[in-house]
Amino acid sequence: MVVVGSVAYDGVETPHGKVDRMLGGAATYIALSASFFTKPAIVAVVGDDFAQEDTDLLLSRGVDLEGLERVPGKCFFWAGKYSQDMNDRETLVTDLNVFADFSPKLPAAYKESPYLLLGNIQPGLQGAVREQMGSNLRVAGGDTMNYWITGFRDELLKTIAGWDFLLINDGEARLLSGETNLKKAAEKILAMGPSTLVIKRGEYGAILWRGDGHFMVPGYLLDDVFDPTGAGDCFAGGFMGYLAGQGIDLRNPSVDHNEIRRAVIYGSVMGSFCCEKFGVDRFRTLTRAEIDGRFEEFRAFTSF
Amino acid sequence: MVVVGSVAYDGVETPHGKVDRMLGGAATYIALSASFFTKPAIVAVVGDDFAQEDTDLLLSRGVDLEGLERVPGKCFFWAGKYSQDMNDRETLVTDLNVFADFSPKLPAAYKESPYLLLGNIQPGLQGAVREQMGSNLRVAGGDTMNYWITGFRDELLKTIAGWDFLLINDGEARLLSGETNLKKAAEKILAMGPSTLVIKRGEYGAILWRGDGHFMVPGYLLDDVFDPTGAGDCFAGGFMGYLAGQGIDLRNPSVDHNEIRRAVIYGSVMGSFCCEKFGVDRFRTLTRAEIDGRFEEFRAFTSF
Repeated sequence: MVVVGSVAYDGVETPHGKVDRMLGGAATYIALSASFFTKPAIVAVVGDDFAQEDTDLLLSRGVDLEGLERVPGKCFFWAGKYSQDMNDRETLVTDLNVFADFSPKLPAAYKESPYLLLGNIQPGLQGAVREQMGSNLRVAGGDTMNYWITGFRDELLKTIAGWDFLLINDGEARLLSGETNLKKAAEKILAMGPSTLVIKRGEYGAILWRGDGHFMVPGYLLDDVFDPTGAGDCFAGGFMGYLAGQGIDLRNPSVDHNEIRRAVIYGSVMGSFCCEKFGVDRFRTLTRAEIDGRFEEFRAFTSF
Repeated sequence: MVVVGSVAYDGVETPHGKVDRMLGGAATYIALSASFFTKPAIVAVVGDDFAQEDTDLLLSRGVDLEGLERVPGKCFFWAGKYSQDMNDRETLVTDLNVFADFSPKLPAAYKESPYLLLGNIQPGLQGAVREQMGSNLRVAGGDTMNYWITGFRDELLKTIAGWDFLLINDGEARLLSGETNLKKAAEKILAMGPSTLVIKRGEYGAILWRGDGHFMVPGYLLDDVFDPTGAGDCFAGGFMGYLAGQGIDLRNPSVDHNEIRRAVIYGSVMGSFCCEKFGVDRFRTLTRAEIDGRFEEFRAFTSF
């Protein structure tokens, strides 16, 4: 499964504490999350300040780093501070550094992958990566954000027209569709191309939409949210990682819909684990048994 | 099933329209909603302006009006205006009128009921009604709001200590418990007495809490929300109405937990129907078949 996005350093402050510099970036979170289900292969760029221990963490989780380009300069750095209730965050620093000129280059082996997950980068770049993929490609999809929806709308529409799934949050879905009502928003977005739409609602869970209906899952109730940074990317990694691990083909008309629903549950599970510690720390100790245990918790607290 | 609360007239403005005066009040919504599952008996007070057609509507749904006191003066009148996204409302008028001196009096026959649902009124009055009930009482519970939680805290705590269930929204749960985290809030509230807690989350659904765990249901996605007035009361009416109709005893240690979960689904179903038309209008035509159809929709969009 190929993952394209940022590998970065983050500074984060939440009501539970403050970390000045730690491993972050969409591709990092996605790959670590997906690594519990399949073998992720990263396409990203880092500077010469990228630490060996962070390379080692990714390798220890089986992440393929052949597509991790190393160039002179500094890694993308982002810093933010969360509000008391964690529902808002303020960006304090965005230093693009080497990420400013990121032009994703896929190693030959990557082009044969059936699964492509495009993290939140410029829509034109997302489209260019999609075009580099070979004929094995079965599922391509990704994320975007308000900045691209507003400022790069035409490019974005062209890009997502070729995707099998789009995975965004409720605010982005409303902005993209121009509809306040989520049901109407989803119908409009499905008409833009993707056969599958997942709308993330933060603490309120997620909704999966396909032409034949929708599936809703509530958000997992955590005792404490230490740091929500990366939770959406971990959702994406769990969702796509499960699809890849099970060999699910979203383009197959007779695809097992319950497998796609289970992918949404695994996405929710991985997003919830992400919030339990700062940054990627939860993934240093997490096990597949814990993941499956939480999956069963979802079944227990939603069945009637 | 005995229902205590307001029978009133409401003026409501939403982005979908404006009605100057229509039947409303917590006891009205609760009783109409519950009437699809059991026979509700109202305890409330109205003035001499209470219209025959509104009496007729309640009677047509099989509601027992023996406890509906009629006194000289005017009915409780409330008017409010909803924001564009329906998530906020501004109260424009609150004329208590005959409701100002409401002192609930239970007809003798009501005292033999096993089910008592106390709408959102002064906690001392709620407690007094509870004490009038006879030895058949199996399930007593109800609603409250910020005004009572803040200004009548001691009376409220004394009252809910004797309840089997409390049914409030997330903001009220946080205020009552002093905890932002809903899991911690629920634990504190269960320690106040009720064995069962239902936290309503508006469009995001509801959570049921009992000592042995929790159950979560997402909110039903409506094409349009015409008027959310009364939706919480209709949830309560569907929840309690289903328990009463099925003869569920929340105090029985071997109670079927799935029945309580299904009561939460029926509450959600009734709350969703309530929003589809102004005021109580949806209940003029609603059928049990439509209700059961939507219950099955909940099963379909939540199972995996």
